[in-house]
Amino acid sequence: MKLFLHLFFFFFCFLQAAVSIAPLQSTHPFDPLTKQEITLIQTIILNKYPTKRNHVKFHYVGLDDPDKATVLEWVSTGAPTTRNAFVIAIINSQVHELTINLRSSRLLSDNIHTGNGFPTLTVDEQSDALQLPFKHRPFVESIKKRGLNLSEVVCSGFTVGWYGETQSSKRVLRIECFMKEETANIYVRPINGITIVADLEQMEIIEYHDNAVEPVPKAENTEYRASHLKPPWGNWKFHIGYDVRAGVIISTASIYDPEVHKSRSVLYRGYISELFVPYQDPTEEWYYKTFFDAGEFGFGQSVVSLEPFNDCPPHAQFLDSYVVGRDGTPQLLHNAICVFEQYGGISWRHTETGIPNQEIREVRSDVTLIVRSVVTVGNYDNVLDWEFKTSGSIKPTISLSGMLEIKAVDITHKDEIKGDQHGTLVSENSIGVYHDHYYIYHLDFDIDGVDNSFVKTNMKTVEVNDQSSKRKSYWTTSSEVVKTESDAKIKLGFSPSELAVVNPNKKTSTGNEVGYRLVPNAAAHPLLTDDDFPQTRGAFTNYNVWVTPYNRTEKWAGGLYVDQSHGDDTLAVWTKQQRGIENKDIVLWYVVGIHHVPCQEDFPIMPLLSTGFELRPTNFFERNPVLKTLSPGIVKGPGCKKP
Amino acid sequence: MKLFLHLFFFFFCFLQAAVSIAPLQSTHPFDPLTKQEITLIQTIILNKYPTKRNHVKFHYVGLDDPDKATVLEWVSTGAPTTRNAFVIAIINSQVHELTINLRSSRLLSDNIHTGNGFPTLTVDEQSDALQLPFKHRPFVESIKKRGLNLSEVVCSGFTVGWYGETQSSKRVLRIECFMKEETANIYVRPINGITIVADLEQMEIIEYHDNAVEPVPKAENTEYRASHLKPPWGNWKFHIGYDVRAGVIISTASIYDPEVHKSRSVLYRGYISELFVPYQDPTEEWYYKTFFDAGEFGFGQSVVSLEPFNDCPPHAQFLDSYVVGRDGTPQLLHNAICVFEQYGGISWRHTETGIPNQEIREVRSDVTLIVRSVVTVGNYDNVLDWEFKTSGSIKPTISLSGMLEIKAVDITHKDEIKGDQHGTLVSENSIGVYHDHYYIYHLDFDIDGVDNSFVKTNMKTVEVNDQSSKRKSYWTTSSEVVKTESDAKIKLGFSPSELAVVNPNKKTSTGNEVGYRLVPNAAAHPLLTDDDFPQTRGAFTNYNVWVTPYNRTEKWAGGLYVDQSHGDDTLAVWTKQQRGIENKDIVLWYVVGIHHVPCQEDFPIMPLLSTGFELRPTNFFERNPVLKTLSPGIVKGPGCKKP
Repeated sequence: MKLFLHLFFFFFCFLQAAVSIAPLQSTHPFDPLTKQEITLIQTIILNKYPTKRNHVKFHYVGLDDPDKATVLEWVSTGAPTTRNAFVIAIINSQVHELTINLRSSRLLSDNIHTGNGFPTLTVDEQSDALQLPFKHRPFVESIKKRGLNLSEVVCSGFTVGWYGETQSSKRVLRIECFMKEETANIYVRPINGITIVADLEQMEIIEYHDNAVEPVPKAENTEYRASHLKPPWGNWKFHIGYDVRAGVIISTASIYDPEVHKSRSVLYRGYISELFVPYQDPTEEWYYKTFFDAGEFGFGQSVVSLEPFNDCPPHAQFLDSYVVGRDGTPQLLHNAICVFEQYGGISWRHTETGIPNQEIREVRSDVTLIVRSVVTVGNYDNVLDWEFKTSGSIKPTISLSGMLEIKAVDITHKDEIKGDQHGTLVSENSIGVYHDHYYIYHLDFDIDGVDNSFVKTNMKTVEVNDQSSKRKSYWTTSSEVVKTESDAKIKLGFSPSELAVVNPNKKTSTGNEVGYRLVPNAAAHPLLTDDDFPQTRGAFTNYNVWVTPYNRTEKWAGGLYVDQSHGDDTLAVWTKQQRGIENKDIVLWYVVGIHHVPCQEDFPIMPLLSTGFELRPTNFFERNPVLKTLSPGIVKGPGCKKP
Repeated sequence: MKLFLHLFFFFFCFLQAAVSIAPLQSTHPFDPLTKQEITLIQTIILNKYPTKRNHVKFHYVGLDDPDKATVLEWVSTGAPTTRNAFVIAIINSQVHELTINLRSSRLLSDNIHTGNGFPTLTVDEQSDALQLPFKHRPFVESIKKRGLNLSEVVCSGFTVGWYGETQSSKRVLRIECFMKEETANIYVRPINGITIVADLEQMEIIEYHDNAVEPVPKAENTEYRASHLKPPWGNWKFHIGYDVRAGVIISTASIYDPEVHKSRSVLYRGYISELFVPYQDPTEEWYYKTFFDAGEFGFGQSVVSLEPFNDCPPHAQFLDSYVVGRDGTPQLLHNAICVFEQYGGISWRHTETGIPNQEIREVRSDVTLIVRSVVTVGNYDNVLDWEFKTSGSIKPTISLSGMLEIKAVDITHKDEIKGDQHGTLVSENSIGVYHDHYYIYHLDFDIDGVDNSFVKTNMKTVEVNDQSSKRKSYWTTSSEVVKTESDAKIKLGFSPSELAVVNPNKKTSTGNEVGYRLVPNAAAHPLLTDDDFPQTRGAFTNYNVWVTPYNRTEKWAGGLYVDQSHGDDTLAVWTKQQRGIENKDIVLWYVVGIHHVPCQEDFPIMPLLSTGFELRPTNFFERNPVLKTLSPGIVKGPGCKKP
């Protein structure tokens, strides 16, 4: 019974990491019910309510949590806790709550629930209900009327919610049916237009309407079982560049489309254009600390050599680069970039239990490609990843490590603090000063061609006031093609929307514009006043998202000359031109921000703090592009046999 | 020259995944400058400006991006592009922008920049400037006055920004110095109180003040080189439970604190309390689809068997569990949960180039422990991970896969759409209906003991109006201990704050309350009206964060009986009691929401869409708890020799 164990996680010097699942002397108070305990519960309840005279259904059987105090006592001393079970059963159509002492095998309580709502449905009653339509003549006729083959129909059950009905309700299930003909993917082949409601207690259909005949969507391209598919390739093609200012640059990235048998362009260029780090201490020794790490110190110039095995896993490949000395001499930077595959995730999966006599489980494990570099500007280390997924997603990740900037103070305990110290006392005499990190990505999309548009799809509430629905509201979307760079300035987090770059000249077979969308992380907004000098220079942080027409010279969001700049050559200035961005070559700029309130764990060197975002294909492909791919084989590491 | 290559990423049926770094016939137009090209550039510029008569410094040497049209032409036909370099050099104190044709070895242009701002600093001039203080008598005296050893001092350079000065500025660098005595971690041992400004052109100190003597923070506990540390253990201890309604439950999680040599409690219980999935189609066949997957169908009851190698990597360990049939009989669920280690990340790192004659690079690779289960409710598959990091972080991740719910329509192309179809035409006759996924986590923290408080730390702008600083603004924090559950209801994303659960009865040696903070992802807010029936039942989504006093029976955010519930037993109702939550046993509830606008890639089965959050120690430890740990050894997989 592996589950009923403690799990210890440890690693030890020079030994390899190891998971140890070790048995305990005694069971944990939160151990799930054992097989024997479940059988005991069943016996006790059926002893009181013999099935000869009673109709008994177990809806919930679980542990009745012991009191916290006793659990904590067990944790520290091993003192035994109570071990009770809590059961919700429907007995003769009444909802019973029963508590059982598992040590004494005694029924402690048996109360009848009379309030609103019903217990979790049993799997068995759902299965039974889903057979009802096949014996219901009107349903058989509806199927016949549609010209469908009843033996290829399979049904599924849906809970019904509550819409203000005041009469006492019955336990019911709505049933919808699907075609399993030519595909295991029943959900995409609904037989719509039929309403079926089953009473779960009487186990009979109590409502049936055939309202309208809608075509059943075709089976073509819906199959997902590997045994029914021919695996194609999944394939990214991109260039990894390097620049002494930008660091790593991803260029001309395109992905192979298995449907059209060609590579399609996605990202012309992607790189971090600037990193703005304003500290938040206005005093004489600190006020000026408002750094632009890319423009002032050179992100590429600050790339450091990676350490094999530790910065990148053992199977990584490394790339070198050249930096340039003050006198113009090239200097080799060894292991500047590494590239490796990452495993352990899932690409897609589904377990299907809804088709009688067939259990289907299809799982594709994931393999992604990561391009990593580390930029160390003085005290901070920025770990910068570009992850490419076979599904078409690109996921950039930023992780912070290295040291805090520390201010020395004559304070050793928080109680001595008087006035604002502009940071956290992270150690004796050491204030970790408040600051922000704003990374701005230059993302020059070329979605299936150069001319693209930026589309903002807003979600908005629609109120239903005309009794046309039992619902009072729902949400829908309205899409807006953004016309100019002025309208494309967006502060994220205040209203729900999806942001996409699309190619209005290329459509899918069903007429959607092909595109990629930005899946952002939690947004940070600047807290400096607009007219403050650092904010003027870092005005590209005023919005999280910007879109500009492509201009070969607009590369650096903080300006070409940033050291002591006056903020007259920033993205915020360029976009005052109100240039058109519809169906044009456009660049999306995205700001990833972190407000950093230091804590003691960041001292004397901080464990990685990570954030990132996703560029995800959205109607770019006709369908899931990795539907037909198989899981990668087990990777044979150096010195390994295949397991 | 590996860097100057295309990188192809592919995987193929039955073959193991492989990265192929393959040479191209021709170089890519975005290939970084080669060593030979950099030397050529140096030669051309120094030919025009011989160093005998000129002072030349190279501040930027990079590729002058070819026109996009020519790059794209190269991508499709291989037609050659121009290959120019762009150089920013300071020649005799003037900033020159030079363009060079690398094919013809010709200088194409040479313009002088006269605007604001200066180029990226060279590494060499920074190094030179950092030696200046040691020859500056007042600095030597300042060090002596502080009783410090000059041979243990090391300096670092900082750009100065711009604060509205109108006279033409000089290229300057501010210099701060640090003690390297007894530690390589110079940044945490600043010698504060001294202002040093160096002119980078004249290479001399032009401003020097010794304002105040502050103690230099001690070296103790700041060292990070493995060679100077004794590695301790990193160790999580927790219980993995299972419940037919909740699925996986993490209990009594504690982490070993290497400073105090004992395990300290963090999380008493954590699990997903409910999953609310309202669809957004008000029509007769769809309006009722507002599911509560945990309460109506049972999250644990819907856990599916994991597939070794694909759902979990080859080295995973599996745990079984029992579900209960309608008749009360236990039924074995094989491979319900898996546990595995994940590699490839970095735990912490730093490269130190600031200490003369010493290069330091310390990198600890990461190993984390993941507990995974998959809950498949009908069409959707939810991949649910709990990740435990040695640094003390817990990172829950939710990933969606499986099938969309599809509505059949008599439409095959977007152009035929009339009116709101409440979804996306993801394939012929198939609307993927708009919906939300709201997961609510029950997180019963016991931070170093049972009685905890919930602290909201707000970041707020402070304007400087009194000329006390050259800054006009900065931000600071104000922390608020939240008194009652009513005040703890928080909609995330609208104002910057950090949310933490702390133990007000346990403080670090510097007086900070020990705690854990919530690092949220982008927040989703409900779009249904408050009075709509589904929203009343799912009112626990009205806020992203809630805090309640611990109550053994308040386990299910949507109520104990959810099927056809009226919303009278939800978290939103309980918290109307305005119970106190200060220095009490408290539970934090966190809602992870996704608004799902389907796209064609989600059809016929969707690639994983992931989101998650982090529970991160914040002043819980005295310092970085993995400072002294070493990287785990290379893992020897089954059938492998150690590489």
